[in-house]
Order: sequence, then C-alpha cells, then structure tokens
Amino acid sequence: MKTQVGIIGAGPSGLILSQLLHLQGIESVVLERKTLDYVLTRIRAGVLEQGCVDLLHEAEVHQRMDKEGFPHDGFEIAFRGATHRVDLKGLTGGTGVMVYGQTEITRDLIEARKAAGGTIIEEAEVTGVEGAETDNPVIHYKKDGRDYTLTCDFVAGCDGYHGASRKSIPANLLKTFEKVYPFGWLGIMSETRPASDELIYTRHERGFALCSMRHEKLSRHYIQCSLDDKVEDWSDDRFWDELKRRLPENVADTLETGPSIEKSIAPLRSFVCETMRHGRLFLAGDAAHIVPPTGAKGLNLAASDIYFLSRGLIDFYKNGSMAGLDAYAGKALRRVWMAERFSWWMTSLLHNFPETGGFGSRMQDAELDYLFGSQAAMTSLAENYVGLPYE
Amino acid sequence: MKTQVGIIGAGPSGLILSQLLHLQGIESVVLERKTLDYVLTRIRAGVLEQGCVDLLHEAEVHQRMDKEGFPHDGFEIAFRGATHRVDLKGLTGGTGVMVYGQTEITRDLIEARKAAGGTIIEEAEVTGVEGAETDNPVIHYKKDGRDYTLTCDFVAGCDGYHGASRKSIPANLLKTFEKVYPFGWLGIMSETRPASDELIYTRHERGFALCSMRHEKLSRHYIQCSLDDKVEDWSDDRFWDELKRRLPENVADTLETGPSIEKSIAPLRSFVCETMRHGRLFLAGDAAHIVPPTGAKGLNLAASDIYFLSRGLIDFYKNGSMAGLDAYAGKALRRVWMAERFSWWMTSLLHNFPETGGFGSRMQDAELDYLFGSQAAMTSLAENYVGLPYE
Repeated sequence: MKTQVGIIGAGPSGLILSQLLHLQGIESVVLERKTLDYVLTRIRAGVLEQGCVDLLHEAEVHQRMDKEGFPHDGFEIAFRGATHRVDLKGLTGGTGVMVYGQTEITRDLIEARKAAGGTIIEEAEVTGVEGAETDNPVIHYKKDGRDYTLTCDFVAGCDGYHGASRKSIPANLLKTFEKVYPFGWLGIMSETRPASDELIYTRHERGFALCSMRHEKLSRHYIQCSLDDKVEDWSDDRFWDELKRRLPENVADTLETGPSIEKSIAPLRSFVCETMRHGRLFLAGDAAHIVPPTGAKGLNLAASDIYFLSRGLIDFYKNGSMAGLDAYAGKALRRVWMAERFSWWMTSLLHNFPETGGFGSRMQDAELDYLFGSQAAMTSLAENYVGLPYE
Repeated sequence: MKTQVGIIGAGPSGLILSQLLHLQGIESVVLERKTLDYVLTRIRAGVLEQGCVDLLHEAEVHQRMDKEGFPHDGFEIAFRGATHRVDLKGLTGGTGVMVYGQTEITRDLIEARKAAGGTIIEEAEVTGVEGAETDNPVIHYKKDGRDYTLTCDFVAGCDGYHGASRKSIPANLLKTFEKVYPFGWLGIMSETRPASDELIYTRHERGFALCSMRHEKLSRHYIQCSLDDKVEDWSDDRFWDELKRRLPENVADTLETGPSIEKSIAPLRSFVCETMRHGRLFLAGDAAHIVPPTGAKGLNLAASDIYFLSRGLIDFYKNGSMAGLDAYAGKALRRVWMAERFSWWMTSLLHNFPETGGFGSRMQDAELDYLFGSQAAMTSLAENYVGLPYE
C-alpha cells in the first residue's frame, strides 16, 4: 500500500495531523496498534492551551468542544490552608485555558476522520520504519498475523513513548534526556461535583494533591503517592480521606465524594529525545518527549509539534519546499524544552521530595510565598500555564 | 562593664547597628575577636541593594560611598557566546544597585564610630552569652588572657557563621537548614580594568564565571572550581586562561589581565538558623544565615536584619515597647528565606552540577532561553536582584 504521509499512532497527535492534511488535500494512512474502541478508553489530560484549541478549530473538530468544554480563566494553588488564585486571564492580558478531555478530542477526531473517509488501520503493529533517509520510506507492520508494508513520502511517528518510531532511528543519532521522579500520581475519576469551579493544585506536607474535573458531574482528583503503592492498596474511602487531609479545610468540608469509576497510578517522568527527525521520519508528541503531568503540558506539546509538522508538510506539498520540514525539529524542540522546564519546575514546587531535605522543602515554601506576592512571578507562571507562543 | 546594647562582632552588621543606635542616643559596646586592622583585610561582597544604601545614609556613613561608589543600572548574563542584559532600572521602574566594597563600608563605619567616641573592644574573644532569658544578659569574653563580662539590656549577635552567639542558644531551641554546593569559587583581585562597565555572570560548559569590579582600576573575577582545588594549583596565568575560555569571545579578547593582588577559594553554602532570637539575644547577618555569593545577597541580608533590629531597639528605648523586637525574627526570616531562594536559584541556574545529569543541564539552558525571551521572568529576576522590599 502507498500513501503520501504514513502516520503511526491514532492518538491525538496522529489524528490531528491526518485531519489537517486531509483538509489540505494531502492523503494519509493512520496505523494504530490497538482498536479504536481501546484508544477511547484511555483517560488522559484535560486542560488545553489556546494554541491547542486553535489547532482543533483549524482541524474543524471544534464543534463539541466549543459547546461542552469549559473555558477556565484561572486556577488555584492551595498552601498552608489557604488558596491563592492565579488569574490567568488578567495576568496574560486575556488568555485562559479550556477544560475538555483528551478522550473527547480523540472521539471527535475519529468521527471526523471516518466521516471524511480517512483510512485508520486498527490492530496494526508497526515493526519498523525502513529507508527514512530515502525519498520513499516504508513502514512495516503486522495485522492478523500477516506482514504488510506502507510506502510513503513521509512518516510521522505519533506512537507514544513505547512506540516503534523512535526505536527505528539508529541509536547513535539520538541523544536522550531523562528524569524519573521518586513518586507517582494516584488518580480517580468519579461522578461527583468538582471541588471548585477551577482546578486546585495543593502543596501539603503529606504530599501534592490536585482537584480537577471534566464537567459539572465528573471529577478527576489526584494525590502524590509512593511508587511502591498499588491501586488495590487504595480503597475509595482511603483515597477521599487522604485527599481531604491535604486540602484546605473549607475545600475539604464541602467536597462531594462518591465511588470511583476509574482509579490508576502513574509514574512521573521527564524525557526528551533529540533529534525529533531522521530523514523523512518525524517524531511528534510522546514518541519524542514526556512531561510530568503537573501543569498539563503533554497533550499541548503534542499539539504544537503537529502545528509545526503540518505546516512543514503542507509547505512541501503546496510549494515543493523542504524548508518547513528542515526547521521542524529545531522549532518543536525549542518549545518542548520550555514546557519541560515549566513542568519540571511546577512538579518540583508542589510535590514532596524527601531527598532534598529540610532546606529543599523551605525553598519550595519560599518560592510559593514569593510567587503569591510578586506580580512578575505570577505573570511568569501564568504565561507558561496558558502556553508559550508557537514560534 | 555595662552597656545598653552589647554587640558581638565588628563586621558591617555590628558596626551599622552600633552607629544607628548612637544616632538615637542609645549606648552600645562592640566586641571584636580580631583587630580592626585584620577586619579591614577581609575582602567580601561589593554589590549593594538600594535598601542597604538607604540604611548607610541613615547611619550617616554615606559620604564616600556616594562619591566613590558606582551605581549600576543593570548587569549581563553570558550564555552560548552572547551576552544578554538585565536592565534592572527599566524592569523595576527605576531601581539599580551600587558597587562599593564591603571593606570600604567597614572602613567608613569604623571611622564614624571612632569619631563619635564609640567603644569597640578589639581582640575580645566572646566565650558565651548568659541570661539571655533575663532582663540583663551578660556577655563573657576573654582579652589578653583575662576574663571579662559585659552586662547589657540586649545582645546583638553579629559575629558570623563561626561566632559564639548562635552557639549560646540551647541547641534544642534551634532548627537549622543547610545545603552545601559541590564546588567552590576561585576569586582573584587584580589592578586591571574591569571586563565591562557592568557585572557579567556567565554560564558555560566549563563552569560558572563572574566578572566583577570595585572601581575603574580594580577588578574582581571568579570562576567555579573544584572543592579539591587549592589556591597554589592556580597560577595567575592559569586563572586568566580559564576565565577567558568561559567568557564570550568579544569579552575575552578585550580582557585586561595582570598579576593578582589577592586569590582565594571559597566554598558555597546555604544556611538558615531558626529562630534568630532567644530572649534578649538577637542574631543578625551571617550568624544566622549564609547564602552562596551568586546574586550578592549576603551583605544585603545583614543590612535588612539590622534595619529590623535597629527599629525594634529604638522603639524599645523611645517608647518602652517590645513589639518591634518581638516581631524581629519573623520579619527578618521572611526576607531571609526569599533571598535564600533567589541565591539558590541563581546559583542553580548558572553553575555546572554534574550530579543532575544531562536533563538538569538542559533545564538550566531552557530556563535561560525562557528568561531572555520573557519580560515577566526578567522582571522577577530584576526585582530580586535589586532587593525585595523591607517589610
């Protein structure tokens, strides 16, 4: 089989790219290792930067988001029993964020791709990319026990951290950077009223906590936990008790609790792969970089990657120029490193790190005290949270 | 002997306090372990916040500083071969810093104290403070082999990190916080033209460097070095060669070199002692806290401590109120922790830390890239560098 752009992975990166290319008359095929039904069971982030919202508009998959998503103009940081508001809109001169689940975005994209007759091959396990340095790279994949090839002009590796794309690049051409944090996030989804209209990030001596939400009847809460913890260790009651202990009294007292409909533990990792391009193979999203979830940059970075990559590909097919594609890795990585820094900083600020000792803990306290009193520091936080420009 | 305020240590903290009290008609005695001649050989910081300058005006020891000091409206950060200016005055709405050596301040203060007939007892080795919880604490000291006592209303411990004051407080009442950095600063003083009109802080793969100065013919340069290094390992030639390697080419090419007139290696440490008060004994300056020298906060923190302490003492003697003294430790420590955070952050940003690996190094790079492009982040840096308000 042949196509113009072979896309590995039917997560948001791959699907947005496929949709953007389609709207410009560029053909693509998306290969997904799992079924689409399985893809839609994944629960991921839910806070979108304006740049990501704009990209979904450009991809013409914005109707439901515009109707059902929740624009947030700020968020709260709880510390020493009090909440402090970060007025995103006021601090940035008008920019906020949008609360809309990644699962919903994926659903909207799959529907759009299907309606347009786009090709998504499910249960296609990519085994490698060959000839990335030629004009006709080939994706090898297995489906139903048989081997297939997909010959392309370009390959987009949107298959996540564990995917085959990055592994197809010779190891000696890659430089990777990693930090593993000594704790995890225990998250639950519950059909309960959110703790507040806005997200509440909490620094507490017992550990980080985050009250988040998807909509008025669906909450997403997290607490910092040990990497040794197992989901079975955490009954719903134990989770709610621990969350309440970490929240300011007025928030805990009015918190609606209820049975979890999902519960999981995720490790926290920072990871960047340089470069994001090998010949005609381009990595995007989690295939090239991972951020810890504090600050919600994962999906938003995938969006900015796809923004740069789609422009490069469109420029090639419209004008025959490789300039945009040649600039891709540099532009994407610049923004990736900025978001990596912010995610690392926000993680470092709000979690417990026993290994940094009393001095490290006081540095976190002092940074929060300084932050709440400084317009400049609050503005810096806000401009990163709403997303640095795509440039 | 009796006095109103017994001051341990004839560094800037103790001398400013003595002078401020004198101007309000409050009597003090300063005890100094070394000779004053020795005190004047110590080379220390040379960048003063406006708050420190204002305090020296209040102490009426500003004449020579106003004439010979150099107001600086900004400084430079060198990174990847280019310099980026931090426009302190523009970013803070009009505040800069003053370059004037700590040695000169000490000299001016000693002259003022002598002119006013103030008592400074040299070579007085304090062995302990007794009765801090009574209304008449007693300082015990040795001089010329004999034991003496100084009975006071209040004791100010301004005798530095290794002094006797902090050690006089029962250990169970103190909580200390410390971070030792895995490198030192090798500094030289030379009678050469400064590298630039303003300070240049450099992040380089070979390590941190700082080009600083005292005046047009006296430079103070530093490079990050190993804690295993000895001064004898570093000839002047080796120092200048290494410094030039770390500086941007245009700075290195025009750098005037010459023989060192002082050369020393200092370790870098963050340290805070809580509390800063025990009964009628008050700690100030290095006796209670140490910052790494990056960002020049050491002397400036001593000045803000003395600002708060002098107000408390004056309030007591004028109005019989303990309110200012009771508030001292809280007010001083709040500002101390903010400056500790800034000094730790600026140190972490600009030095090499092999133990944080490639990811940590990239976080530093990303933070600098972000900083140079963000008005908010630059403003945050500037407002800390010129000094947060005394409040």
